[in-house]
Amino acid sequence: MEHLEDLKDFLRIPSISTDPAHHPDILRAARFVAEQLRAGGMHNVELIVGDGNPLVYGDWLAAPGKPTLLMYGHYDVQPPDPLDEWLSPPFEPEIRGDNIYARGAADDKGLTLILIKAVAGLLKKRGSLRVNIRFLIEGEEEVGGEHIERYVSSKPAQMRADAAVICDTEMFAPELPTICVGLRGIIYGELVVQGAEQDLHSGVYGGAAPNPIQAIAEILCALKDRDGHIRIPGFHDRIVPPSDKERAAWARLPFHEKEYLHQEMKAIALVGEPEYPLFDRLWARPTLEVHGIRGGFTGEGAKTVIPAHAVAKISTRLVADQRPSEAIEQIQAAVAAACPRGVRAEFRAIHSAPPSLVNPDNPFIKAAADAMTAVFGNETVYTRSGGSIPIVGLFERSLGIPSVMMGFGLPDDNLHAPNEKLYLPNFFRGIEAVEKFLEML
Amino acid sequence: MEHLEDLKDFLRIPSISTDPAHHPDILRAARFVAEQLRAGGMHNVELIVGDGNPLVYGDWLAAPGKPTLLMYGHYDVQPPDPLDEWLSPPFEPEIRGDNIYARGAADDKGLTLILIKAVAGLLKKRGSLRVNIRFLIEGEEEVGGEHIERYVSSKPAQMRADAAVICDTEMFAPELPTICVGLRGIIYGELVVQGAEQDLHSGVYGGAAPNPIQAIAEILCALKDRDGHIRIPGFHDRIVPPSDKERAAWARLPFHEKEYLHQEMKAIALVGEPEYPLFDRLWARPTLEVHGIRGGFTGEGAKTVIPAHAVAKISTRLVADQRPSEAIEQIQAAVAAACPRGVRAEFRAIHSAPPSLVNPDNPFIKAAADAMTAVFGNETVYTRSGGSIPIVGLFERSLGIPSVMMGFGLPDDNLHAPNEKLYLPNFFRGIEAVEKFLEML
Repeated sequence: MEHLEDLKDFLRIPSISTDPAHHPDILRAARFVAEQLRAGGMHNVELIVGDGNPLVYGDWLAAPGKPTLLMYGHYDVQPPDPLDEWLSPPFEPEIRGDNIYARGAADDKGLTLILIKAVAGLLKKRGSLRVNIRFLIEGEEEVGGEHIERYVSSKPAQMRADAAVICDTEMFAPELPTICVGLRGIIYGELVVQGAEQDLHSGVYGGAAPNPIQAIAEILCALKDRDGHIRIPGFHDRIVPPSDKERAAWARLPFHEKEYLHQEMKAIALVGEPEYPLFDRLWARPTLEVHGIRGGFTGEGAKTVIPAHAVAKISTRLVADQRPSEAIEQIQAAVAAACPRGVRAEFRAIHSAPPSLVNPDNPFIKAAADAMTAVFGNETVYTRSGGSIPIVGLFERSLGIPSVMMGFGLPDDNLHAPNEKLYLPNFFRGIEAVEKFLEML
Repeated sequence: MEHLEDLKDFLRIPSISTDPAHHPDILRAARFVAEQLRAGGMHNVELIVGDGNPLVYGDWLAAPGKPTLLMYGHYDVQPPDPLDEWLSPPFEPEIRGDNIYARGAADDKGLTLILIKAVAGLLKKRGSLRVNIRFLIEGEEEVGGEHIERYVSSKPAQMRADAAVICDTEMFAPELPTICVGLRGIIYGELVVQGAEQDLHSGVYGGAAPNPIQAIAEILCALKDRDGHIRIPGFHDRIVPPSDKERAAWARLPFHEKEYLHQEMKAIALVGEPEYPLFDRLWARPTLEVHGIRGGFTGEGAKTVIPAHAVAKISTRLVADQRPSEAIEQIQAAVAAACPRGVRAEFRAIHSAPPSLVNPDNPFIKAAADAMTAVFGNETVYTRSGGSIPIVGLFERSLGIPSVMMGFGLPDDNLHAPNEKLYLPNFFRGIEAVEKFLEML
């Protein structure tokens, strides 16, 4: 169980990239990955240190004339809050049943380790590989990945490869091997609203004073209607709908809407644009979500204040062929148009990533699908993901290579939420499937 | 300057009633008031301890056959946050220019002390008074005053009086003596919205998952339109508009809208129901304000979470003849009607108080107006207040007595906001005016 002990050690490092206070943990996690690569037989292992969190690089290039795979993962994690909803502490991995619970278990430390352990294991067993391997493991995936973007955009020789392998997606259902061929992009930012210069008493000024939180409510309702339609002019102009063939394949996926609603999402109703099927809404339509609003009084009891300013964290998911920079301008224009009297409102982007679509017919994806079918005993399905893995678009644009997204997470892994977990049998079958994939190429 | 030293001592006690952690300070403030009453010659001084914060009682009843005045004030204060916007610490009173800065300086410790010092001073000078006096100083004004409500509602003999004198309002303008004859009521509560049972990843579930903060935005926009009209069915049915005479008097008040906007409120535009004049909007129309929204992610950076639940602090100001219990039901019905699919929403009232209107022709108000005119050298004006002093309605309903609201605060005193202050000349002239009022009766 050496693999499991390594996984636990990895999960114990609170490498939260959204919080600058955790920078020392980021460095510890980067060094941990470097040690894993070295121990696994990789050469030229190094931390690529730039403006942001280090990239971890390592390679094995002793198969001349054979294809080169670029293995990608990330060692940073989301913040663990709300802490009081975790059944065990987020950075003290605990195995309950077949699952290991910890922040980062599925997103993405567990899956990153699958790639490392597969390459290392095969190299140990066979003494050599039939393909060349480069690892590039980043530490800013959860905060926009600026460092890796600059690095990869500069097209260094170290990045020369024929395809990327990305282990940061999930299986559509337990036992159902899944390759992801599409990702939504993202724009994450802050809607900043300023009312009066200072907080005001709602009795004395209520009826004449602008209220920045009410203004945020009005802007949010102007940007998205009650049925989930985004009302930002031009926002949908470039959207490419899924093909009939893809929609038909989605309709065949084993899916129980009631189970999804009640057991996975645990809500009382599915919402969103009613005229689109669910998988369209999750994978092929843009969304707009508000994540939190700062400003005013939220403590115990009552305070009758009209706050001077308020900030909403909002994001939108983009689908092919939307462009982040264009979409940011559209959002900014829509915010300006929706801004009520008496306040100033502005949308400030924090990070963004384009959407991406991969052609499922390329030979790397076919080999991965065959390998996963062999290990899991079920035909591999092709899906998209509603989430964003900015690196996929970057590899495509900057390096001209496709990404093979082998998913070993499960839908109920609680990514970005309390009690994140990884289903341990998938950790071990994932290692087996990646080994087989490397042998089949 | 003994009065000033006493005021400073009073202001140093952080008697924040909204925060249970400050309960010891509440008790200190109550004992401070009791000592002031005793030192001022009051008899039967006691803390009336019930379920909530103590009421402080004291009387002087040695003028048989003469009217009895019930002097009201409160020793509790609002929380001082946001702390970093104070120029001097909120509980370390600092005199800058003619003002003393501290939380509670104007609301209501400074004004409460005016009443105590006036009665004590007159008694010391003359040896006796021409009226009987009862003091009732409470410690829950900022949290709904449940204790005083229960106590006064029980109509104890200690509360027998012919009129109440309340020092918790402001002058319309510097040097302009002002008596307040109307107050808005209030309902303060929480709009609690539940979506899925746990936080969800906005990439994976965005497009199908309900978002409680977006739901709050939709409910807020349904309850109030962009022009400030409250859209709660039945909410306006009982509203009594001001008389033509009252409106005409308001129109004669010295008022510079641009100064009010830019120097007092410090905003870019006055908002609210455009078809009503400003003083109607502030004094004679109900309002609905959101004070803060808790839920989701508001920290540094980015977290792509769809929160499981969110809570908005909201309040509405009521005007005569709205009834709090009826209005709470109307709000609850409107929230239920506005609740979007996929979430559960509920409005829970925390506290409420009815609006009140006093007849300005009663002899106590006339005497107070004459006294203030004499001390300030300007004709006393009659205004209303947009704020809520629940005790006024309570005195009217339970004791059948009118309230004389003598205002010595100023419009720029920053009530409930950072850098609350009291204009010290008004502290001393207030004492003089109350003394004269007591002599004129």
